[in-house]
Amino acid sequence: MRARDLGIVIGEHPTGAANAITDVPGVRVGHLTLDAEGPPAVHTGVTVVIPHDDIWTEPVFAGAHRLNGSGEMTGLEWIRESGELTTPIGLTNTHSVGVVRDELVAAQVRARGEGLYWSLPVVGETYDGLLNDINGFHVRPEHVRSALADASAAPPAEGNVGGGTGMICHGFKGGIGTASRTTETAVGRYTVGVLVQANHGRRERLRINGIGVGEAIGPSAVPLPELPDRYEPGSGSIIVVVATDAPLLPHQCARLAQRSALAVGRLGGTGEQYSGDLMLAFSTGNRGIPPYAWDEDAGTACPEIPARMVAPQMMTRLFDLTIEATEEAIVNAMVAARTMTGRHGLTVHALDHALLRQALSSPRPQETS
Amino acid sequence: MRARDLGIVIGEHPTGAANAITDVPGVRVGHLTLDAEGPPAVHTGVTVVIPHDDIWTEPVFAGAHRLNGSGEMTGLEWIRESGELTTPIGLTNTHSVGVVRDELVAAQVRARGEGLYWSLPVVGETYDGLLNDINGFHVRPEHVRSALADASAAPPAEGNVGGGTGMICHGFKGGIGTASRTTETAVGRYTVGVLVQANHGRRERLRINGIGVGEAIGPSAVPLPELPDRYEPGSGSIIVVVATDAPLLPHQCARLAQRSALAVGRLGGTGEQYSGDLMLAFSTGNRGIPPYAWDEDAGTACPEIPARMVAPQMMTRLFDLTIEATEEAIVNAMVAARTMTGRHGLTVHALDHALLRQALSSPRPQETS
Amino acid sequence: MRARDLGIVIGEHPTGAANAITDVPGVRVGHLTLDAEGPPAVHTGVTVVIPHDDIWTEPVFAGAHRLNGSGEMTGLEWIRESGELTTPIGLTNTHSVGVVRDELVAAQVRARGEGLYWSLPVVGETYDGLLNDINGFHVRPEHVRSALADASAAPPAEGNVGGGTGMICHGFKGGIGTASRTTETAVGRYTVGVLVQANHGRRERLRINGIGVGEAIGPSAVPLPELPDRYEPGSGSIIVVVATDAPLLPHQCARLAQRSALAVGRLGGTGEQYSGDLMLAFSTGNRGIPPYAWDEDAGTACPEIPARMVAPQMMTRLFDLTIEATEEAIVNAMVAARTMTGRHGLTVHALDHALLRQALSSPRPQETS
Amino acid sequence: MRARDLGIVIGEHPTGAANAITDVPGVRVGHLTLDAEGPPAVHTGVTVVIPHDDIWTEPVFAGAHRLNGSGEMTGLEWIRESGELTTPIGLTNTHSVGVVRDELVAAQVRARGEGLYWSLPVVGETYDGLLNDINGFHVRPEHVRSALADASAAPPAEGNVGGGTGMICHGFKGGIGTASRTTETAVGRYTVGVLVQANHGRRERLRINGIGVGEAIGPSAVPLPELPDRYEPGSGSIIVVVATDAPLLPHQCARLAQRSALAVGRLGGTGEQYSGDLMLAFSTGNRGIPPYAWDEDAGTACPEIPARMVAPQMMTRLFDLTIEATEEAIVNAMVAARTMTGRHGLTVHALDHALLRQALSSPRPQETS
Repeated sequence: MRARDLGIVIGEHPTGAANAITDVPGVRVGHLTLDAEGPPAVHTGVTVVIPHDDIWTEPVFAGAHRLNGSGEMTGLEWIRESGELTTPIGLTNTHSVGVVRDELVAAQVRARGEGLYWSLPVVGETYDGLLNDINGFHVRPEHVRSALADASAAPPAEGNVGGGTGMICHGFKGGIGTASRTTETAVGRYTVGVLVQANHGRRERLRINGIGVGEAIGPSAVPLPELPDRYEPGSGSIIVVVATDAPLLPHQCARLAQRSALAVGRLGGTGEQYSGDLMLAFSTGNRGIPPYAWDEDAGTACPEIPARMVAPQMMTRLFDLTIEATEEAIVNAMVAARTMTGRHGLTVHALDHALLRQALSSPRPQETS
Repeated sequence: MRARDLGIVIGEHPTGAANAITDVPGVRVGHLTLDAEGPPAVHTGVTVVIPHDDIWTEPVFAGAHRLNGSGEMTGLEWIRESGELTTPIGLTNTHSVGVVRDELVAAQVRARGEGLYWSLPVVGETYDGLLNDINGFHVRPEHVRSALADASAAPPAEGNVGGGTGMICHGFKGGIGTASRTTETAVGRYTVGVLVQANHGRRERLRINGIGVGEAIGPSAVPLPELPDRYEPGSGSIIVVVATDAPLLPHQCARLAQRSALAVGRLGGTGEQYSGDLMLAFSTGNRGIPPYAWDEDAGTACPEIPARMVAPQMMTRLFDLTIEATEEAIVNAMVAARTMTGRHGLTVHALDHALLRQALSSPRPQETS
Repeated sequence: MRARDLGIVIGEHPTGAANAITDVPGVRVGHLTLDAEGPPAVHTGVTVVIPHDDIWTEPVFAGAHRLNGSGEMTGLEWIRESGELTTPIGLTNTHSVGVVRDELVAAQVRARGEGLYWSLPVVGETYDGLLNDINGFHVRPEHVRSALADASAAPPAEGNVGGGTGMICHGFKGGIGTASRTTETAVGRYTVGVLVQANHGRRERLRINGIGVGEAIGPSAVPLPELPDRYEPGSGSIIVVVATDAPLLPHQCARLAQRSALAVGRLGGTGEQYSGDLMLAFSTGNRGIPPYAWDEDAGTACPEIPARMVAPQMMTRLFDLTIEATEEAIVNAMVAARTMTGRHGLTVHALDHALLRQALSSPRPQETS
Repeated sequence: MRARDLGIVIGEHPTGAANAITDVPGVRVGHLTLDAEGPPAVHTGVTVVIPHDDIWTEPVFAGAHRLNGSGEMTGLEWIRESGELTTPIGLTNTHSVGVVRDELVAAQVRARGEGLYWSLPVVGETYDGLLNDINGFHVRPEHVRSALADASAAPPAEGNVGGGTGMICHGFKGGIGTASRTTETAVGRYTVGVLVQANHGRRERLRINGIGVGEAIGPSAVPLPELPDRYEPGSGSIIVVVATDAPLLPHQCARLAQRSALAVGRLGGTGEQYSGDLMLAFSTGNRGIPPYAWDEDAGTACPEIPARMVAPQMMTRLFDLTIEATEEAIVNAMVAARTMTGRHGLTVHALDHALLRQALSSPRPQETS
């Protein structure tokens, strides 16, 4: 079940074929989900986003943005310096970033063989310690391998899956969501795809298509997670991955990443104090950007590499696509997620579909006096 | 006429006494408006925001954010390096930044007398060339002096005034707007005040309190400005100035500035390609931060200066106040602005109050299928 | 007289034909110098660096870096956002940034005619208030026009000239300096040219080619400027402009700008508290990057623009060229500058050529015990 | 053996008691070294820097800088957002960042017990794959625990030790180095301590106290490591950790971090393309900055926290201390390191002490024509 199945359409631009990040040609997504009631309650996992099949040896341009930094995304210094994403992207829980990161290194070694290269993988995280036995460190290297092996161009599963298994979003059950948008240009179609691991936000601020869904579906209708004292409301995080086949240069990728933060804000997120809201955008539109440009025929290094950039006047349209797809990906994460009871018996309820339909279609609540 | 006069209340937190940036104690605002039908059509001016009376010799902590950089705000390198705002803030049109900047230097020299100090004033701008004879360079040094002389703690005029005289916002007449929010704490009340010079956004994306006002008030109801070919919709800019008496450190100021960008996004702005969306936040909560710490009694330099910072768990609430106040300031700018016919006979229509009331109270348009 | 005339060769790479920023094809430099003993003592001016003849309508890629932010360089938000430099670069004194900035806007209007475009010129500054009646605001719009009219591809004058007229560098007379380096590649020669306005540094830290020239030429040999109490040693600033015809993308330009800061450090600068050390790098290697990509034949917008980037493995060599050229440009500024007596009778002495030769060739002072 | 034992004194400021980062009160350093000739050749390890004993629950202010981003330092997004360092700092090889990071999380759980907090440890790396079987992933969690257990306030071992075991610096054997500087103020002594993991630089560019040591000790005197084809000279990395008890605010910490990059440049580093040159500075001068400010007596949250900042006019002196200490720490790393033969039989030679003395004391080579 997805947002569109409930009649929710965000924005005006058409979706890609599957309304998923995998609509961007070459992009693959894989999940490995750990879901055991326990004890210990294990509700976590790994999600990987692979920009294209040769990413280990052929980078793509990329850029990042921080809405709020109470989180981790490894590999950003290299992206900011070089403009290049050189590995798959891993998503997991906060305390398993390391194991996923090192196993992505190992995967590169397996793929490329030994050599004097180094690997600086990108791994993002959100915190699932309310539902998952996070300090049990249940994510193991083999789980990363499974997620990589699972990666396919099929539309990725959403909700309680992969890195998003134990997540909470706007006081409802959260997790993985995805969406895409397309636009036609004089040189063909551009697609912008988004995948989120959504674990952020406060219930009462949730707004979908401008409608105060979070207020409409109050705690009496759907209970809020019972948080301990001094646990800051709005703590959590969201990771947004934006993919596009539009040929963006690195600084243009960073601009798309920044715009996806506006989508978080439009739904009600504020980059809360203890929310790690980090965004990464990459473009597959420029291929053949090598780590070392070598002319095999001449046996010499090539000092220059050709590239393309999207024209300035196209950027606003790409911003719109990015915002729409990010909003819908977040909603998809909540719509797909199922109620979960986890660690210490905490229950986090799914966003009830019937109540959501009702909130969206009922006469407007009086928001103005 | 302000948003609240039309029954529009944004958010949940109380306003300050005047619902204006001047609710922050010590902050003063002054305008100088040039408004001549011409030819040439002169619809421009200068607005100044003065953090406190001794700003020339006693800096306040500050931080900045860029939502989109198609604009100018001078003085930011010093703010990013030192965390200090050392001058009043000037706002004007794009092509008059220089004259305002140099005249703020001259004002400092008049205030402090000669000396071996230098001045790096902060001046932001938005483009009024659609309505104003911007290349006539009508802003003169005496206009800056007038705006400074006009500065008072009274609630500032809004709409077609000062630097905002000739601005356009979401396809309606824009300009200056302001609002404030307060919160009670164990050590007293904190106030966050915002002033915007709003010249950004596309009509069809305008949403107030989640309601698609821009779509509801279409071109047939209120004509759109007639833009020339290849003039990118959404071109323009917004400058947001956030003031607070909460004792923020510089990096905390930057976080508030960044949150105000979410308010721009919530109303429909996207940081469009040719929009210069720049945000500055300052805190008057730490006073006595000197450019050179000198112990007059001892006749020696002081190596340390005491300061206070807002505790981490307070930041989310301050973010909320900032977002609310910024949203309402933008709406106030449009509500206060009046229809203007300017250069080349271009007419930009005000946001009609009756239509706005109607859009906000009518049954919800079918946004979901 | 230049460093090389004194036998000073910095680094290992060859210079361009004139060892100047104008060795980069298309780059032009113009000066306007105001030099009156007074009273008032007027020792200031304007320097312009023009990337190519069509810069008003055809941007070049650019990037910036801040070593220390006690200074101003307008236009940086647009460069950071778009990666594009869209105007000539102006250099002047701290309190005349505005007049130069607005007059560069006016120059664009004269060049392009009226239209609905806006201009965000880049103007950097350093403080000449110790020698110049800076608060007399002697730089006028006509001086900017003169500097623009003076711009040529000839090697620019150095020392007490243009924006650098009244500057002080490492306790000696400073000002404008330039240098260049070249390297051969499989696709031809790349040139990196640098121009500095040098007004930074402390005498005792000055090191040229590793030799402690500043200690060797002590105050007894060449008096230090008599600074007032509490005037922080090392106050001042340096602006570095790096130009190259290597086809750099924007993020690559920023990397060159950052490397030029290492050259400042190698000569003894530390980014002192009150020094505005700002660097800008641009590349003329990608031409035809339009502000709006339009296919005149088809009458439609072009969504994409071709570009080239320098291959990763070339960057280290370009860094080396940049550092060498920046070091030599700073030394050239001091070597060319002449002793000046200015405001309040303050005398700043030139770096004596004979003493410099002697310091560089004498047996090494005992720096190690 | 350290630089001072060879008569090398860098700069003018006095050192702390041990000329080490541990001169900053409360700072502890621990190493775990893996050193097996093999096969496989295992020459790697872990170093930890612990700001103070309660770092798990009481952050210190911190800031970071990137000279070149071909490297990893986890935890930086949180430091940039909050200005706070909340964990010990781990240093290891490039492919073991993850295991060190996750084990630092586990150490926090052991120290604090279970709870709904999260951990975002800081782990930096440099690449030892030329000497070490890096893809054997020999660093294990127990090694991190050993390094933590080893942490003491004693002056840390230098050279082939801990995370620096298999490193190469300016074509000589590199590794861990440390140094410190102090300054007296009206409120007491400030200490700046530095620890580096040095794995960067090219031989021919190495300059110590301005003297071209790298050129003087050429390949015929001390062979260069035999690098494979297309292995970029200057590849490697340096991590710099700066500690001080001066009460710096977060943005002031970032400024110290940035200055340490100038020290890298002064010795000959250029932030080469494939060098990950990342700097972190923290201040122990403000204690009692809580993650959640709670008044135990009142049972309420505290909205404000007192802090101190270093006065502006002190910053230049702190910059000088930082640059001096960083330079000497790098030299100490090379002086302490011993020749190593590692993977594939590659030998990396130590910087010969006799040749170094000779280079530093011999008559100056003719660097000027």
